Amino acid sequence: MKKRLSTPGPTTVPESVLLKMAEPIIHHRSAEYGELFAQINQGLKYLFQTENEVLTFTSSGTGAMEAAVVNLLSPGDKVLVVRGGKFGERWAEICTAYGVQVEPLDVEWGHAVDPQQIAAKLEAVPEIRTVFTTHSETSTGVINDIEAIGQIVREHSVLLVVDGITSIGTHRFLPDQWHIDVAVTGSQKGLMLSPGLAFASVSQKAWEMVKSSNLPKYYWSFSAAKKFLTKNQNPYTPAVSLLVGLKKSLEMIQEEGLENIWARHQRHAQATRAAVRALGLEVFAKNPSNILTIVRVPEGIDGKLLLKTIRTKYGITMAGGQAALAGKVVRISHMGYIDDFDILTAIAALERGLKDLEWQLELGSGVTAAQQVLGE
Amino acid sequence: MKKRLSTPGPTTVPESVLLKMAEPIIHHRSAEYGELFAQINQGLKYLFQTENEVLTFTSSGTGAMEAAVVNLLSPGDKVLVVRGGKFGERWAEICTAYGVQVEPLDVEWGHAVDPQQIAAKLEAVPEIRTVFTTHSETSTGVINDIEAIGQIVREHSVLLVVDGITSIGTHRFLPDQWHIDVAVTGSQKGLMLSPGLAFASVSQKAWEMVKSSNLPKYYWSFSAAKKFLTKNQNPYTPAVSLLVGLKKSLEMIQEEGLENIWARHQRHAQATRAAVRALGLEVFAKNPSNILTIVRVPEGIDGKLLLKTIRTKYGITMAGGQAALAGKVVRISHMGYIDDFDILTAIAALERGLKDLEWQLELGSGVTAAQQVLGE
Repeated sequence: MKKRLSTPGPTTVPESVLLKMAEPIIHHRSAEYGELFAQINQGLKYLFQTENEVLTFTSSGTGAMEAAVVNLLSPGDKVLVVRGGKFGERWAEICTAYGVQVEPLDVEWGHAVDPQQIAAKLEAVPEIRTVFTTHSETSTGVINDIEAIGQIVREHSVLLVVDGITSIGTHRFLPDQWHIDVAVTGSQKGLMLSPGLAFASVSQKAWEMVKSSNLPKYYWSFSAAKKFLTKNQNPYTPAVSLLVGLKKSLEMIQEEGLENIWARHQRHAQATRAAVRALGLEVFAKNPSNILTIVRVPEGIDGKLLLKTIRTKYGITMAGGQAALAGKVVRISHMGYIDDFDILTAIAALERGLKDLEWQLELGSGVTAAQQVLGE
Repeated sequence: MKKRLSTPGPTTVPESVLLKMAEPIIHHRSAEYGELFAQINQGLKYLFQTENEVLTFTSSGTGAMEAAVVNLLSPGDKVLVVRGGKFGERWAEICTAYGVQVEPLDVEWGHAVDPQQIAAKLEAVPEIRTVFTTHSETSTGVINDIEAIGQIVREHSVLLVVDGITSIGTHRFLPDQWHIDVAVTGSQKGLMLSPGLAFASVSQKAWEMVKSSNLPKYYWSFSAAKKFLTKNQNPYTPAVSLLVGLKKSLEMIQEEGLENIWARHQRHAQATRAAVRALGLEVFAKNPSNILTIVRVPEGIDGKLLLKTIRTKYGITMAGGQAALAGKVVRISHMGYIDDFDILTAIAALERGLKDLEWQLELGSGVTAAQQVLGE
């Protein structure tokens, strides 16, 4: 049986990238590596659409999130954290682990944060110097309006840190225009690479904060990464094989063009949502992200069994719900290395799985709705 | 030109492991991954020769070192750190970054630590509850007597943390018999894999320390890793492709057998040292490790030019000296995926490079000495 991933990370890695990862290893202090890393660093600036340095860490995306916290803050600092899903909560957990005081802004799962609520919090609690939020919240399928948040944060002269783990390279994202000070991402999402690398862009204003931050740090030190970046190296042995693959995936992104990639994700999201609605199902998110569609499992259907059926009978791995959504939703990713026919395949498998569980639907109705959006 | 690595990490990755890394990615919350990770965890216990849990982190080896520090200690704790090279110094740097008080035991580069000096320090400074040291110190080519240190540490009821990054899977290493509480290693050394994974074994006594440690931690949390280990998962998305490769490299290690692998490294080290001496050169380390041989560059020869010649004319990357040894030594690794003929190749390239720089030697004399040891 052919196996396919429709999960919001890891996403499918193109065959040409996989083969790059299988090339003989090179030494990370060699001139050859220096050239590779220089090209990667240019590619990362394009990916992030930034003039700022983009730092590379060998870790999962959570590592870059932790790096943002420990490099900007000091114990007792007060920060605003938007908690509208599992990944917003993660910012709060990391801050709390380091003795940073979290002023939470809780948002109902499935809804985007209202930027005016951030403004209100900043006015009510003037000690807040940094705002942490999530662009595309993968646990709820919601996209937040970072551009509007950036404007508010700028008016209040505070720093903005954004988890762009699933949005960078998939959603329109302009950190320099939107006043984002630190943006982080990981390799296994829009970058179409295996997991194991994480990245953080750092603004000039953020570098000023780094100087005064005194949370403990060693492996995550932005300053150490920056120092080695000037020599096109890393402080500690990086995941060389993943970086060789990264060069290739960045080339693919540059070739397709970010504007085109953003438009593709939007079109695929629209097609998937149209299919879901044509099947009489509900999209969970009120302000849905283009990287995944979260479908409410209809009454009377066992969500875990539905996922298992789709996986074992049709070879397609979709993701289930997290925390309170466990068993209640199916998360269908359309992020990364995806074309129109992959969208149709995912919808077709969803139809078949639902049919197998004896849910009433006309086979092909979802596929048709998607096909009509895609072929417009 | 064929390219070969004789560097002490990254080391050469077997072709069969590289190809595993190129397999289509699987999802880290799938049953398939759970089976893979369960097999890996069994293999890691064999590799470490321990009954304790071995935790996996997506990071370089330095990440696992930092994890050991932040999971065992609390601010203001006093620790003994053996500083006999760059990697011993790293323990001290990490501890200092976290506000841990370091009682250094400085050892002249090239010498092993005298275990009795550790005993004397522990008696002189009874507040010390933890000793940090390095098994094979890659910057100096020295192997330390961890078994003797373990005995002393046990008598003083303190914890022992060992950097086994280049020794685990290459040198005789028995953490349970030697009373090692935390041992760490990385993927790009004896494990014959690409860099990007790090591992830590944790003893029962160490888990007791974890309970009372209050240094801040999130990504490095031993407790989080242990909790997910019981489900054969990881707290955050792991470097899946590297883990798929790891399963293969662990199988290769189990097939060859650790005792045989240790013996092979010893024999290769003996052959390399014999060759170096036959060429009229000096081995830098007094108590040399089996994983690499550090050769003093003879008077009148430019060490950096020698390395460059060997790399550019003969395709072989060896490592130079670090810190005070820069330009003064050549570091020839014989760690990991190495056979007898790779040893001869490295010696032959060293001969050719020296000859090119007009150092007087009889071509073949080093190779012959090595060949005689290898063929015994």
